[in-house]
Amino acid sequence: MKIIIVGASGTMGTYLVNAWEQEHEIIKASAHSGDIQVDITDPESIENLFQQVGAFDALICTAGPTYVGAWKSLSSETFRKGLEGKLMGQINLVLIGQHYIKPKGSFTLITGALTHEPQRNFANASAANGAVEAFVRAAAIELENGVRINAVSPTVIENSPQYFPYFPGEMPTTMKQLEYGFRKSVFGANTGQIITLH
Amino acid sequence: MKIIIVGASGTMGTYLVNAWEQEHEIIKASAHSGDIQVDITDPESIENLFQQVGAFDALICTAGPTYVGAWKSLSSETFRKGLEGKLMGQINLVLIGQHYIKPKGSFTLITGALTHEPQRNFANASAANGAVEAFVRAAAIELENGVRINAVSPTVIENSPQYFPYFPGEMPTTMKQLEYGFRKSVFGANTGQIITLH
Ligand SMILES: NC(=O)c1ccc[n+]([C@@H]2O[C@H](COP(=O)([O-])OP(=O)(O)OC[C@H]3O[C@@H](n4cnc5c(N)ncnc54)[C@H](OP(=O)(O)O)[C@@H]3O)[C@@H](O)[C@H]2O)c1
Ligand SMILES: NC(=O)c1ccc[n+]([C@@H]2O[C@H](COP(=O)([O-])OP(=O)(O)OC[C@H]3O[C@@H](n4cnc5c(N)ncnc54)[C@H](OP(=O)(O)O)[C@@H]3O)[C@@H](O)[C@H]2O)c1
Repeated sequence: MKIIIVGASGTMGTYLVNAWEQEHEIIKASAHSGDIQVDITDPESIENLFQQVGAFDALICTAGPTYVGAWKSLSSETFRKGLEGKLMGQINLVLIGQHYIKPKGSFTLITGALTHEPQRNFANASAANGAVEAFVRAAAIELENGVRINAVSPTVIENSPQYFPYFPGEMPTTMKQLEYGFRKSVFGANTGQIITLH
Repeated sequence: MKIIIVGASGTMGTYLVNAWEQEHEIIKASAHSGDIQVDITDPESIENLFQQVGAFDALICTAGPTYVGAWKSLSSETFRKGLEGKLMGQINLVLIGQHYIKPKGSFTLITGALTHEPQRNFANASAANGAVEAFVRAAAIELENGVRINAVSPTVIENSPQYFPYFPGEMPTTMKQLEYGFRKSVFGANTGQIITLH
Protein backbone atom coordinates (compact mmCIF):
# COMPACT_ATOMS: atom_id res chain seq x y z
CA MET A 1 0.00 0.00 0.00
CA LYS A 2 1.00 3.58 -0.63
CA ILE A 3 0.47 5.32 2.73
CA ILE A 4 1.01 9.00 3.51
CA ILE A 5 1.91 9.71 7.15
CA VAL A 6 1.50 13.39 8.01
CA GLY A 7 3.46 14.02 11.20
CA ALA A 8 6.00 11.31 10.30
CA SER A 9 8.81 12.98 12.27
CA GLY A 10 6.85 13.11 15.54
CA THR A 11 6.71 10.66 18.45
CA MET A 12 3.78 8.72 17.00
CA GLY A 13 4.83 9.14 13.37
CA THR A 14 8.38 7.83 13.93
CA TYR A 15 7.03 4.68 15.58
CA LEU A 16 4.55 4.01 12.77
CA VAL A 17 7.12 4.61 10.04
CA ASN A 18 9.54 2.15 11.67
CA ALA A 19 6.79 -0.43 12.15
CA TRP A 20 5.41 -0.29 8.61
CA GLU A 21 8.13 0.81 6.19
CA GLN A 22 9.33 -2.72 5.37
CA GLU A 23 5.90 -3.76 4.13
CA HIS A 24 4.48 -0.58 2.64
CA GLU A 25 5.45 2.42 0.57
CA ILE A 26 5.41 5.15 3.20
CA ILE A 27 5.40 8.81 2.18
CA LYS A 28 6.74 10.76 5.16
CA ALA A 29 5.33 14.27 5.49
CA SER A 30 6.06 16.74 8.28
CA ALA A 31 6.33 20.46 8.79
CA HIS A 32 10.14 20.62 8.60
CA SER A 33 11.47 17.29 7.32
CA GLY A 34 10.53 14.04 5.54
CA ASP A 35 9.93 13.18 1.90
CA ILE A 36 7.55 16.12 1.53
CA GLN A 37 7.12 19.16 3.72
CA VAL A 38 3.59 20.32 4.40
CA ASP A 39 1.93 22.91 6.62
CA ILE A 40 -1.53 21.54 7.40
CA THR A 41 -2.73 25.00 8.48
CA ASP A 42 -2.39 26.11 4.84
CA PRO A 43 -4.80 24.59 2.26
CA GLU A 44 -2.42 25.45 -0.61
CA SER A 45 0.38 23.54 1.06
CA ILE A 46 -1.98 20.54 1.49
CA GLU A 47 -2.97 20.72 -2.19
CA ASN A 48 0.74 20.74 -3.07
CA LEU A 49 1.34 17.63 -0.92
CA PHE A 50 -1.32 15.65 -2.78
CA GLN A 51 -0.16 16.89 -6.18
CA GLN A 52 3.33 15.61 -5.43
CA VAL A 53 2.12 12.24 -4.08
CA GLY A 54 -0.60 11.53 -6.64
CA ALA A 55 -3.00 8.64 -6.03
CA PHE A 56 -2.57 6.88 -2.67
CA ASP A 57 -4.26 4.15 -0.60
CA ALA A 58 -4.25 5.61 2.89
CA LEU A 59 -3.51 8.81 4.73
CA ILE A 60 -2.66 8.77 8.43
CA CYS A 61 -2.39 12.06 10.28
CA THR A 62 -0.46 12.25 13.56
CA ALA A 63 0.11 16.01 13.23
CA GLY A 64 -2.22 18.10 15.33
CA PRO A 65 -0.81 21.24 16.89
CA THR A 66 -2.87 22.69 19.76
CA TYR A 67 -2.40 25.36 22.41
CA VAL A 68 -1.37 23.94 25.77
CA GLY A 69 -1.36 26.35 28.69
CA ALA A 70 -3.08 27.75 31.74
CA TRP A 71 -6.79 28.49 31.35
CA LYS A 72 -6.11 32.17 32.12
CA SER A 73 -3.95 32.38 28.98
CA LEU A 74 -6.69 30.93 26.77
CA SER A 75 -8.20 33.63 24.55
CA SER A 76 -9.68 34.02 21.11
CA GLU A 77 -6.08 34.38 19.88
CA THR A 78 -4.39 31.45 21.63
CA PHE A 79 -7.40 29.22 20.89
CA ARG A 80 -6.69 29.55 17.17
CA LYS A 81 -3.64 27.28 17.36
CA GLY A 82 -5.74 24.15 17.69
CA LEU A 83 -8.51 25.55 15.52
CA GLU A 84 -6.24 26.07 12.50
CA GLY A 85 -3.98 23.12 13.38
CA LYS A 86 -5.43 19.93 14.77
CA LEU A 87 -9.01 20.81 13.78
CA MET A 88 -9.06 22.60 10.41
CA GLY A 89 -5.69 21.14 9.36
CA GLN A 90 -6.93 17.58 9.64
CA ILE A 91 -10.35 18.38 8.15
CA ASN A 92 -8.67 20.04 5.17
CA LEU A 93 -6.49 16.95 4.64
CA VAL A 94 -9.77 15.09 4.04
CA LEU A 95 -11.69 17.77 2.11
CA ILE A 96 -8.75 18.18 -0.27
CA GLY A 97 -7.35 14.64 -0.14
CA GLN A 98 -10.67 13.05 -1.18
CA HIS A 99 -9.93 14.26 -4.73
CA TYR A 100 -6.63 12.31 -4.84
CA ILE A 101 -7.28 9.14 -2.78
CA LYS A 102 -7.88 5.81 -4.56
CA PRO A 103 -11.32 4.16 -4.38
CA LYS A 104 -11.62 2.15 -1.14
CA GLY A 105 -8.79 4.23 0.34
CA SER A 106 -8.86 5.43 3.95
CA PHE A 107 -8.21 8.49 6.07
CA THR A 108 -7.19 8.05 9.71
CA LEU A 109 -7.05 11.15 11.88
CA ILE A 110 -5.69 11.67 15.39
CA THR A 111 -7.78 12.79 18.36
CA GLY A 112 -7.30 11.70 22.01
CA ALA A 113 -8.91 10.96 25.35
CA LEU A 114 -9.30 14.71 26.03
CA THR A 115 -12.53 14.71 23.99
CA HIS A 116 -14.37 13.06 26.86
CA GLU A 117 -11.87 13.26 29.72
CA PRO A 118 -10.65 16.82 30.03
CA GLN A 119 -7.44 17.79 31.83
CA ARG A 120 -6.34 21.22 32.99
CA ASN A 121 -4.39 23.22 30.36
CA PHE A 122 -5.80 21.22 27.42
CA ALA A 123 -9.20 22.80 26.63
CA ASN A 124 -7.99 23.73 23.16
CA ALA A 125 -7.08 20.10 22.37
CA SER A 126 -10.43 18.89 23.78
CA ALA A 127 -12.34 21.18 21.42
CA ALA A 128 -10.21 20.21 18.40
CA ASN A 129 -10.65 16.50 19.19
CA GLY A 130 -14.42 16.85 19.60
CA ALA A 131 -14.72 18.59 16.24
CA VAL A 132 -12.55 16.03 14.46
CA GLU A 133 -14.47 13.08 15.94
CA ALA A 134 -17.86 14.51 14.94
CA PHE A 135 -16.46 15.35 11.50
CA VAL A 136 -15.26 11.75 11.09
CA ARG A 137 -18.78 10.45 11.74
CA ALA A 138 -20.27 13.02 9.35
CA ALA A 139 -17.72 12.47 6.57
CA ALA A 140 -18.23 8.69 6.73
CA ILE A 141 -21.79 9.07 5.38
CA GLU A 142 -20.67 11.46 2.63
CA LEU A 143 -17.39 10.15 1.19
CA GLU A 144 -17.79 8.32 -2.13
CA ASN A 145 -16.15 5.37 -3.94
CA GLY A 146 -15.86 3.31 -0.77
CA VAL A 147 -13.43 5.74 0.84
CA ARG A 148 -13.37 5.24 4.60
CA ILE A 149 -12.52 7.53 7.51
CA ASN A 150 -11.80 6.89 11.21
CA ALA A 151 -10.01 8.54 14.10
CA VAL A 152 -7.60 6.99 16.58
CA SER A 153 -8.02 8.20 20.16
CA PRO A 154 -5.19 7.28 22.56
CA THR A 155 -4.67 8.74 26.00
CA VAL A 156 -1.16 10.01 26.84
CA ILE A 157 1.25 7.58 25.09
CA GLU A 158 4.08 5.69 26.75
CA ASN A 159 6.74 7.41 24.59
CA SER A 160 5.67 10.87 25.81
CA PRO A 161 6.68 10.80 29.50
CA GLN A 162 6.92 14.61 29.49
CA TYR A 163 3.10 14.69 29.49
CA PHE A 164 2.54 12.16 32.30
CA PRO A 165 2.26 14.85 35.04
CA TYR A 166 -0.65 16.45 33.17
CA PHE A 167 -2.61 13.17 33.05
CA PRO A 168 -2.85 11.98 36.67
CA GLY A 169 -4.08 8.43 36.98
CA GLU A 170 -4.02 7.79 33.24
CA MET A 171 -2.55 4.43 32.29
CA PRO A 172 -0.54 5.37 29.18
CA THR A 173 -1.47 3.91 25.81
CA THR A 174 1.41 1.66 24.71
CA MET A 175 3.04 2.28 21.34
CA LYS A 176 1.94 -1.20 20.30
CA GLN A 177 -1.70 -0.38 21.11
CA LEU A 178 -1.34 2.85 19.16
CA GLU A 179 0.09 1.03 16.15
CA TYR A 180 -2.70 -1.55 16.28
CA GLY A 181 -5.31 1.20 16.46
CA PHE A 182 -4.00 2.60 13.19
CA ARG A 183 -3.83 -0.96 11.77
CA LYS A 184 -7.51 -1.46 12.54
CA SER A 185 -8.44 1.69 10.64
CA VAL A 186 -6.11 1.29 7.64
CA PHE A 187 -6.36 -2.46 7.05
CA GLY A 188 -9.88 -3.09 8.43
CA ALA A 189 -13.25 -2.24 6.91
CA ASN A 190 -14.66 0.16 9.50
CA THR A 191 -15.73 3.69 8.76
CA GLY A 192 -16.97 6.57 10.91
CA GLN A 193 -15.41 4.98 14.00
CA ILE A 194 -13.45 6.49 16.86
CA ILE A 195 -10.91 3.80 17.73
CA THR A 196 -10.54 4.33 21.44
CA LEU A 197 -7.28 3.14 23.05
CA HIS A 198 -7.91 3.99 26.70
CA MET B 1 -32.16 36.52 37.47
CA LYS B 2 -30.48 38.65 34.85
CA ILE B 3 -30.21 36.38 31.82
CA ILE B 4 -28.63 37.20 28.46
CA ILE B 5 -30.10 35.28 25.52
CA VAL B 6 -27.86 35.47 22.46
CA GLY B 7 -29.96 34.50 19.45
CA ALA B 8 -33.11 35.91 21.09
CA SER B 9 -34.79 36.67 17.75
CA GLY B 10 -34.45 33.10 16.43
CA THR B 11 -36.87 30.16 16.60
CA MET B 12 -35.46 28.88 19.89
CA GLY B 13 -34.69 32.31 21.31
CA THR B 14 -38.21 33.67 20.72
CA TYR B 15 -39.73 30.71 22.56
CA LEU B 16 -37.39 31.07 25.54
CA VAL B 17 -37.91 34.82 25.79
CA ASN B 18 -41.70 34.37 25.82
CA ALA B 19 -41.49 31.60 28.41
CA TRP B 20 -39.17 33.40 30.83
CA GLU B 21 -39.59 37.16 30.47
CA GLN B 22 -42.32 37.45 33.12
CA GLU B 23 -40.09 35.97 35.81
CA HIS B 24 -36.62 37.15 34.83
CA GLU B 25 -34.76 40.16 33.48
CA ILE B 26 -34.01 38.99 29.96
CA ILE B 27 -31.40 40.81 27.86
CA LYS B 28 -32.21 40.01 24.23
CA ALA B 29 -29.17 39.91 21.93
CA SER B 30 -29.15 39.02 18.24
CA ALA B 31 -27.25 39.91 15.10
CA HIS B 32 -29.80 42.42 13.77
CA SER B 33 -32.31 43.19 16.52
CA GLY B 34 -33.03 42.97 20.24
CA ASP B 35 -31.86 45.04 23.22
CA ILE B 36 -28.25 44.72 22.09
CA GLN B 37 -26.85 43.74 18.73
CA VAL B 38 -23.86 41.42 18.71
CA ASP B 39 -21.86 39.54 16.10
CA ILE B 40 -20.52 36.45 17.85
CA THR B 41 -17.93 35.93 15.10
CA ASP B 42 -16.22 39.13 16.28
CA PRO B 43 -14.54 39.13 19.73
CA GLU B 44 -14.70 42.95 19.92
CA SER B 45 -18.45 42.86 19.40
CA ILE B 46 -18.75 40.24 22.18
CA GLU B 47 -16.66 42.39 24.53
CA ASN B 48 -18.96 45.30 23.72
CA LEU B 49 -22.04 43.19 24.57
CA PHE B 50 -20.71 42.36 28.03
CA GLN B 51 -19.58 45.93 28.69
CA GLN B 52 -23.12 47.13 27.99
CA VAL B 53 -24.78 44.42 30.10
CA GLY B 54 -22.39 44.43 33.06
CA ALA B 55 -22.66 41.68 35.67
CA PHE B 56 -25.20 38.95 34.86
CA ASP B 57 -26.40 35.61 36.25
CA ALA B 58 -26.72 33.46 33.15
CA LEU B 59 -25.94 33.50 29.47
CA ILE B 60 -27.85 31.28 27.05
CA CYS B 61 -26.69 31.04 23.47
CA THR B 62 -29.08 29.85 20.76
CA ALA B 63 -27.08 31.53 17.98
CA GLY B 64 -24.85 29.20 16.04
CA PRO B 65 -24.51 29.82 12.32
CA THR B 66 -23.15 26.87 10.30
CA TYR B 67 -22.77 25.99 6.64
CA VAL B 68 -25.54 23.72 5.37
CA GLY B 69 -25.09 22.29 1.90
CA ALA B 70 -24.07 19.41 -0.31
CA TRP B 71 -20.84 17.63 0.67
CA LYS B 72 -19.35 18.57 -2.72
CA SER B 73 -19.67 22.24 -1.81
CA LEU B 74 -17.84 21.78 1.50
CA SER B 75 -14.36 23.29 1.33
CA SER B 76 -11.85 25.03 3.55
CA GLU B 77 -13.77 28.25 2.75
CA THR B 78 -17.36 27.11 3.29
CA PHE B 79 -16.34 25.19 6.41
CA ARG B 80 -15.35 28.44 8.09
CA LYS B 81 -18.96 29.51 8.57
CA GLY B 82 -19.49 27.06 11.43
CA LEU B 83 -15.91 27.39 12.61
CA GLU B 84 -16.16 31.14 13.19
CA GLY B 85 -19.88 31.02 14.07
CA LYS B 86 -21.28 28.17 16.13
CA LEU B 87 -17.85 26.98 17.30
CA MET B 88 -15.54 29.94 17.96
CA GLY B 89 -18.46 32.35 18.46
CA GLN B 90 -19.86 30.35 21.36
CA ILE B 91 -16.42 29.60 22.82
CA ASN B 92 -15.56 33.31 22.73
CA LEU B 93 -18.82 34.12 24.56
CA VAL B 94 -17.40 32.01 27.42
CA LEU B 95 -13.73 33.05 27.23
CA ILE B 96 -14.75 36.73 27.30
CA GLY B 97 -17.96 36.43 29.34
CA GLN B 98 -16.20 34.72 32.27
CA HIS B 99 -14.76 38.13 33.17
CA TYR B 100 -18.25 39.64 33.53
CA ILE B 101 -20.44 36.82 34.89
CA LYS B 102 -21.42 36.78 38.58
CA PRO B 103 -20.04 34.07 40.91
CA LYS B 104 -22.18 30.91 40.59
CA GLY B 105 -23.45 32.14 37.23
CA SER B 106 -23.91 29.81 34.27
CA PHE B 107 -23.25 29.55 30.57
CA THR B 108 -25.52 27.35 28.43
CA LEU B 109 -24.48 26.76 24.83
CA ILE B 110 -26.34 25.15 21.94
CA THR B 111 -25.19 22.01 20.11
CA GLY B 112 -27.47 19.30 18.64
CA ALA B 113 -27.94 15.64 17.79
CA LEU B 114 -25.62 15.98 14.78
CA THR B 115 -22.61 15.54 17.09
CA HIS B 116 -23.30 11.82 17.27
CA GLU B 117 -25.95 11.29 14.60
CA PRO B 118 -24.77 12.85 11.36
CA GLN B 119 -27.07 13.76 8.49
CA ARG B 120 -26.16 14.58 4.91
CA ASN B 121 -25.43 18.30 4.29
CA PHE B 122 -24.62 19.00 7.94
CA ALA B 123 -20.96 17.98 8.44
CA ASN B 124 -20.04 21.55 9.35
CA ALA B 125 -22.63 21.62 12.16
CA SER B 126 -21.49 18.19 13.40
CA ALA B 127 -17.91 19.43 13.75
CA ALA B 128 -18.97 22.66 15.46
CA ASN B 129 -21.19 20.73 17.90
CA GLY B 130 -18.44 18.24 18.71
CA ALA B 131 -15.99 21.03 19.48
CA VAL B 132 -18.48 22.92 21.65
CA GLU B 133 -19.43 19.79 23.64
CA ALA B 134 -15.79 18.88 24.33
CA PHE B 135 -15.09 22.51 25.24
CA VAL B 136 -17.99 22.49 27.70
CA ARG B 137 -16.50 19.49 29.51
CA ALA B 138 -13.05 21.10 29.52
CA ALA B 139 -14.22 24.53 30.63
CA ALA B 140 -16.22 23.01 33.51
CA ILE B 141 -12.99 21.94 35.26
CA GLU B 142 -11.36 25.34 34.70
CA LEU B 143 -14.01 28.02 35.36
CA GLU B 144 -13.69 29.69 38.77
CA ASN B 145 -16.02 31.15 41.42
CA GLY B 146 -18.58 28.40 41.00
CA VAL B 147 -19.39 29.40 37.44
CA ARG B 148 -21.06 26.52 35.60
CA ILE B 149 -21.27 25.57 31.92
CA ASN B 150 -23.46 23.10 30.01
CA ALA B 151 -24.74 22.54 26.50
CA VAL B 152 -28.27 21.73 25.36
CA SER B 153 -28.47 19.20 22.53
CA PRO B 154 -31.88 18.88 20.84
CA THR B 155 -32.54 17.10 17.58
CA VAL B 156 -34.57 18.99 14.95
CA ILE B 157 -37.15 21.04 16.91
CA GLU B 158 -40.89 20.99 16.36
CA ASN B 159 -41.00 24.70 15.44
CA SER B 160 -38.54 24.17 12.54
CA PRO B 161 -40.58 22.05 10.08
CA GLN B 162 -38.43 23.32 7.20
CA TYR B 163 -35.66 21.01 8.47
CA PHE B 164 -37.79 17.85 8.90
CA PRO B 165 -36.90 16.45 5.43
CA TYR B 166 -33.20 16.53 6.36
CA PHE B 167 -33.77 14.47 9.52
CA PRO B 168 -35.59 11.33 8.38
CA GLY B 169 -36.97 9.29 11.25
CA GLU B 170 -36.11 11.90 13.85
CA MET B 171 -38.87 12.50 16.37
CA PRO B 172 -38.67 16.30 16.78
CA THR B 173 -37.71 17.78 20.14
CA THR B 174 -40.73 19.69 21.45
CA MET B 175 -40.36 23.35 22.38
CA LYS B 176 -41.34 22.41 25.93
CA GLN B 177 -38.53 19.83 26.10
CA LEU B 178 -36.13 22.43 24.74
CA GLU B 179 -37.21 24.99 27.33
CA TYR B 180 -36.84 22.42 30.11
CA GLY B 181 -33.35 21.52 28.89
CA PHE B 182 -32.32 25.14 29.31
CA ARG B 183 -34.11 25.24 32.69
CA LYS B 184 -32.06 22.28 33.88
CA SER B 185 -28.83 24.04 33.00
CA VAL B 186 -29.67 27.56 34.22
CA PHE B 187 -31.58 26.73 37.42
CA GLY B 188 -29.94 23.39 38.29
CA ALA B 189 -26.49 22.70 39.72
CA ASN B 190 -24.92 20.63 36.94
CA THR B 191 -21.75 21.57 35.14
CA GLY B 192 -19.86 20.07 32.22
CA GLN B 193 -23.01 18.28 31.05
CA ILE B 194 -24.50 17.83 27.60
CA ILE B 195 -28.25 17.94 28.20
CA THR B 196 -29.48 15.59 25.52
CA LEU B 197 -33.08 16.04 24.32
CA HIS B 198 -33.37 13.24 21.75
N1 LIG C 1 1.89 12.39 22.68
C1 LIG C 1 0.80 11.99 23.35
O1 LIG C 1 0.87 11.47 24.48
C2 LIG C 1 -0.55 12.13 22.73
C3 LIG C 1 -1.66 11.49 23.28
C4 LIG C 1 -2.91 11.65 22.68
C5 LIG C 1 -3.03 12.44 21.55
N2 LIG C 1 -1.92 13.06 21.05
C6 LIG C 1 -2.06 13.86 19.83
O2 LIG C 1 -1.35 13.21 18.80
C7 LIG C 1 -0.78 14.16 17.91
C8 LIG C 1 0.69 13.82 17.69
O3 LIG C 1 1.34 13.70 18.92
P1 LIG C 1 2.93 13.48 18.97
O4 LIG C 1 3.28 13.39 20.43
O5 LIG C 1 3.37 12.41 18.04
O6 LIG C 1 3.42 14.92 18.42
P2 LIG C 1 4.91 15.44 18.11
O7 LIG C 1 5.93 14.46 18.56
O8 LIG C 1 4.99 16.83 18.61
O9 LIG C 1 4.94 15.45 16.50
C9 LIG C 1 4.14 16.34 15.80
C10 LIG C 1 4.29 16.06 14.32
O10 LIG C 1 3.39 16.92 13.63
C11 LIG C 1 4.13 17.70 12.70
N3 LIG C 1 3.49 19.02 12.60
C12 LIG C 1 3.32 19.95 13.57
N4 LIG C 1 2.69 21.04 13.08
C13 LIG C 1 2.47 20.77 11.77
C14 LIG C 1 1.88 21.51 10.70
N5 LIG C 1 1.36 22.75 10.88
N6 LIG C 1 1.84 20.95 9.48
C15 LIG C 1 2.35 19.71 9.27
N7 LIG C 1 2.92 18.96 10.23
C16 LIG C 1 2.97 19.50 11.47
C17 LIG C 1 5.52 17.76 13.23
O11 LIG C 1 6.43 18.08 12.17
P3 LIG C 1 7.92 18.70 12.47
O12 LIG C 1 8.60 17.72 13.40
O13 LIG C 1 8.55 18.79 11.12
O14 LIG C 1 7.66 20.04 13.12
C18 LIG C 1 5.68 16.34 13.76
O15 LIG C 1 5.94 15.46 12.70
C19 LIG C 1 -1.09 15.53 18.51
O16 LIG C 1 -2.20 16.07 17.86
C20 LIG C 1 -1.45 15.23 19.94
O17 LIG C 1 -2.43 16.16 20.42
C21 LIG C 1 -0.71 12.92 21.60
N1 LIG D 1 -33.82 24.61 14.54
C1 LIG D 1 -33.54 23.34 14.81
O1 LIG D 1 -34.31 22.39 14.52
C2 LIG D 1 -32.26 23.01 15.54
C3 LIG D 1 -32.06 21.73 16.07
C4 LIG D 1 -30.86 21.46 16.74
C5 LIG D 1 -29.89 22.45 16.86
N2 LIG D 1 -30.13 23.69 16.32
C6 LIG D 1 -29.12 24.73 16.49
O2 LIG D 1 -29.68 25.73 17.31
C7 LIG D 1 -29.20 27.03 16.94
C8 LIG D 1 -30.37 27.99 16.81
O3 LIG D 1 -31.33 27.45 15.96
P1 LIG D 1 -32.62 28.30 15.53
O4 LIG D 1 -33.43 27.42 14.64
O5 LIG D 1 -33.25 28.95 16.72
O6 LIG D 1 -31.89 29.43 14.61
P2 LIG D 1 -32.54 30.71 13.91
O7 LIG D 1 -34.02 30.70 14.02
O8 LIG D 1 -31.90 30.80 12.55
O9 LIG D 1 -31.99 31.91 14.82
C9 LIG D 1 -30.64 32.21 14.85
C10 LIG D 1 -30.40 33.30 15.86
O10 LIG D 1 -28.98 33.52 15.93
C11 LIG D 1 -28.71 34.87 15.64
N3 LIG D 1 -27.41 34.94 14.93
C12 LIG D 1 -27.06 34.38 13.75
N4 LIG D 1 -25.78 34.68 13.47
C13 LIG D 1 -25.32 35.45 14.49
C14 LIG D 1 -24.08 36.10 14.77
N5 LIG D 1 -23.02 35.98 13.95
N6 LIG D 1 -23.98 36.80 15.91
C15 LIG D 1 -25.03 36.90 16.76
N7 LIG D 1 -26.22 36.31 16.55
C16 LIG D 1 -26.36 35.60 15.43
C17 LIG D 1 -29.87 35.37 14.78
O11 LIG D 1 -29.94 36.78 14.86
P3 LIG D 1 -30.72 37.64 13.71
O12 LIG D 1 -32.14 37.11 13.67
O13 LIG D 1 -30.65 39.04 14.22
O14 LIG D 1 -29.96 37.41 12.44
C18 LIG D 1 -31.02 34.63 15.48
O15 LIG D 1 -31.38 35.33 16.66
C19 LIG D 1 -28.35 26.80 15.68
O16 LIG D 1 -26.99 26.75 16.05
C20 LIG D 1 -28.76 25.42 15.20
O17 LIG D 1 -27.68 24.73 14.58
C21 LIG D 1 -31.29 23.98 15.68
